[in-house]
Amino acid sequence: MLELSHRASLVEPFHAMDVFAAANRARQAGVDVISLAVGQPADPAPQGVRDAAMKKSAEGLVSYTNALGLDVLRQAIAEHYKDHYGVDVSASRIAVTSGSSAGFNLAFLSMFDHGDRVAITRPGYPAYRNILSVLGLEVEEISTAETGYLTADSLREVHARKPLKGLLFASPANPTGASMPAEALQELVAVAADLGIALISDEIYHRLNFARPDATAVAFSDDVVVINSFSKYYCMTGWRIGWMVLPERLVRPVERVAQSLYISASEISQIAAVEAFKCTEELDAIRFRYQQSRELLMDALPKLNLPLLAPMDGAFYAYCDVSAYSEDSQAFAKTMLEETGVAASTGVDFDPIDGHKSLRFSYCQRPERVAEAIERMKNWLKAG
Amino acid sequence: MLELSHRASLVEPFHAMDVFAAANRARQAGVDVISLAVGQPADPAPQGVRDAAMKKSAEGLVSYTNALGLDVLRQAIAEHYKDHYGVDVSASRIAVTSGSSAGFNLAFLSMFDHGDRVAITRPGYPAYRNILSVLGLEVEEISTAETGYLTADSLREVHARKPLKGLLFASPANPTGASMPAEALQELVAVAADLGIALISDEIYHRLNFARPDATAVAFSDDVVVINSFSKYYCMTGWRIGWMVLPERLVRPVERVAQSLYISASEISQIAAVEAFKCTEELDAIRFRYQQSRELLMDALPKLNLPLLAPMDGAFYAYCDVSAYSEDSQAFAKTMLEETGVAASTGVDFDPIDGHKSLRFSYCQRPERVAEAIERMKNWLKAG
Repeated sequence: MLELSHRASLVEPFHAMDVFAAANRARQAGVDVISLAVGQPADPAPQGVRDAAMKKSAEGLVSYTNALGLDVLRQAIAEHYKDHYGVDVSASRIAVTSGSSAGFNLAFLSMFDHGDRVAITRPGYPAYRNILSVLGLEVEEISTAETGYLTADSLREVHARKPLKGLLFASPANPTGASMPAEALQELVAVAADLGIALISDEIYHRLNFARPDATAVAFSDDVVVINSFSKYYCMTGWRIGWMVLPERLVRPVERVAQSLYISASEISQIAAVEAFKCTEELDAIRFRYQQSRELLMDALPKLNLPLLAPMDGAFYAYCDVSAYSEDSQAFAKTMLEETGVAASTGVDFDPIDGHKSLRFSYCQRPERVAEAIERMKNWLKAG
Repeated sequence: MLELSHRASLVEPFHAMDVFAAANRARQAGVDVISLAVGQPADPAPQGVRDAAMKKSAEGLVSYTNALGLDVLRQAIAEHYKDHYGVDVSASRIAVTSGSSAGFNLAFLSMFDHGDRVAITRPGYPAYRNILSVLGLEVEEISTAETGYLTADSLREVHARKPLKGLLFASPANPTGASMPAEALQELVAVAADLGIALISDEIYHRLNFARPDATAVAFSDDVVVINSFSKYYCMTGWRIGWMVLPERLVRPVERVAQSLYISASEISQIAAVEAFKCTEELDAIRFRYQQSRELLMDALPKLNLPLLAPMDGAFYAYCDVSAYSEDSQAFAKTMLEETGVAASTGVDFDPIDGHKSLRFSYCQRPERVAEAIERMKNWLKAG
């Protein structure tokens, strides 16, 4: 009789996916659902990306690629670092991955051993905790409630209590949308190096910061791992394509692990992703709509007595305190969906301690839909 | 300073990929390379698959799906079990994965804990050993040299020496092409159940058995895990799409782990794969060419003094003994590529003990190319 492993039992379900499923059921039942629940851009990938995918699909021969990805894509990603950040990164340091999900797994397997202690932020993206746990790593959660982002001081303090092997953080962050000033990032990189803590910077929400310019961790050190993806700004979630920037000496180990665990990322998605960097005009038009949606929410949420728990800098998320209405954000989200057709995510996914008091709204939707959602919530909360 | 984890150092590179890279370099230098090195079908995915991918790419919105995959694909896969094997499998037991690679990882994480002991066959697909090792599992290799496949007796014997938690095997197998008679599979399933060993059946080479009808492990028990893929018979390697059949009680755990580790498989590939089951005529024409190539190789290899090490039942592979010429199959493969333009895989990937004396030829190429490769090898071995 097949038994479930102990480690699989450590993995929490994504409650967001349950809301997603409930929203789909409501939609099928004819409800006009406005989903502010998942980080799934409402727009398709840009035309250039779609054209490249159509061409490749028509040609037909879609093969395994090198485990680190097609050279043309690795080159395009390297050029993006020059263009966007003014940083020189050799294409040989780029690993193309099946979304950032594969990037996390490859980083953890290549850098950490069973029992190693790795810090993440609370609140944070739930897959961080789940992947670390299932790989037998000890997870330390550092609260970012005070400043919105992880500070060098809090890292020092946690490390002094019990030494850390690694640190993973995101800026802009999920679920808060908060971002780090460049100087704070630079300090964090320096302090981590000083303490011998391996640093992984999740930069999946870059190009979606409305408060300050993007700063990449590789600008401050070659000895960090950066994880990024075409899912968010580039609107390519379901294409499953992302990348890592690696220190030179991690390239071969990551390649070897990737050969066995993934073989390669989808070749269609790789070829299509090359075009993504050429579609800035189209993508910035989408970004502009997010910005409008953001302004609507940033204005409305506090007025609805749903105060923000962190600065809404970017990443198309607003994270707010629902405790004026409920201490059970999961039940609150469920009732709100049923009674207004507006779907939001419960904080329980992102914060095992305080998440029952918070909700995440995703604003990668058209502004008119976000406005409509706000209107419905206003009437509902007034009536309630 | 970032350090490499101990576990990543346990992962061997695919030497096949080095041959693949050397073959690509030779090709770029103008050499007419005939690659019999990798399990990459020479034909593109069938027209129906390509059309579906083009349509989806044109429509544009490509999203995350449920972690277990689109219902329409899970349903199509379930129907395939009825059509092809006459076995009832509920669609609820199907998990769509990013190739069989993801299937192995999900099975191991959901079923086994750090330190558990899992048996595989020797020779065998190198990713088995590498994924198990990187996840902290103890790997026991059982030789199949005697019969070509794993017998219930050898399983009993190994288990008696030191108990096993799990067993993973393939039929038809990589690299040998050998397959198990249905009765042997049935006995193995029964004995594994009896001994409390969790069984994973890799059926990626089904529909490519030229010696006997396919037998699936789920025909004999609901309490096994089956892993399969659209890569081989369906010619969809670079699409990264496969599936698992799970016992009911593993469905939710696998879903939870998949949500965090993969989110979902590529939506384009999922939608395209639905069509694959409707393209049997086109795919069987390709299969017929493999059969012709197989006959050429089966006849030629022994005559070239490269005797088969196992019955060439299917899976488009021939595994043969090169010791009449060399005890270093890696050097032999390299020289053969340089001097004849024919690429084959060294046995070192598949068998850490005896692989230095063996080569794998992959015959998923057009028969005229295989005939040309044989001709070149004949002249070269005569001259040598």
